[in-house]
Amino acid sequence: MQFNTETLRYDAQGLIPAIAQDVGTGTVLMLAWMNAEAVARTLAEGRVTYWSRSRKAFWTKGESSGHVQRLVEMRIDCDRDCLLLLVEQVGPACHTNRHACFYTAIRDGVEVVIMEPEV
Amino acid sequence: MQFNTETLRYDAQGLIPAIAQDVGTGTVLMLAWMNAEAVARTLAEGRVTYWSRSRKAFWTKGESSGHVQRLVEMRIDCDRDCLLLLVEQVGPACHTNRHACFYTAIRDGVEVVIMEPEV
Repeated sequence: MQFNTETLRYDAQGLIPAIAQDVGTGTVLMLAWMNAEAVARTLAEGRVTYWSRSRKAFWTKGESSGHVQRLVEMRIDCDRDCLLLLVEQVGPACHTNRHACFYTAIRDGVEVVIMEPEV
Repeated sequence: MQFNTETLRYDAQGLIPAIAQDVGTGTVLMLAWMNAEAVARTLAEGRVTYWSRSRKAFWTKGESSGHVQRLVEMRIDCDRDCLLLLVEQVGPACHTNRHACFYTAIRDGVEVVIMEPEV
């Protein structure tokens, strides 16, 4: 079936969550949001573009930092309300300069930082 | 720092997205939602409980299907508005009986089912 961005289920703000996963290591890098146009641009360009909810603007990952995400494959979940992006990540994915955004673990009820910024 | 569920950033509905990842294989299994109480229950019980937006009720994964998710570790992202759950998944994670919910890939503009239901 030909894919049509309009067949995804967006929330009241017209957004769908997208999980970025490093295709090589399997590390879950980050979660961000897309609207239909961001989905279309990402598929067309092979580079990941999100919608920034804070800036209310398209956000092509790495446009300022150079830490781009090359799209290897986009997948849709069973409810069509979430996307999984298999990507090749250039440099750190997180704005804190860490490889991934999920660097705080909860261990025995205590927050532990388990990943340091890259240098 | 002691973890406090109130320090997470929930959306207008009081919910935070939670990504479940198979700790052994790295497969991203599903995305669902939690409220503060679901986060607390999951940490206390070591079994994953979500909040079902459609049923407006707590949803302990596997309570009817037996396909439970044992929590190995909960991680928080940099913005504190998304969770990553490293889990041991018993049986398929998806209600379609597939191992994971992201079983539809978009390849050359066409939707391709890349995972079959388990038997």
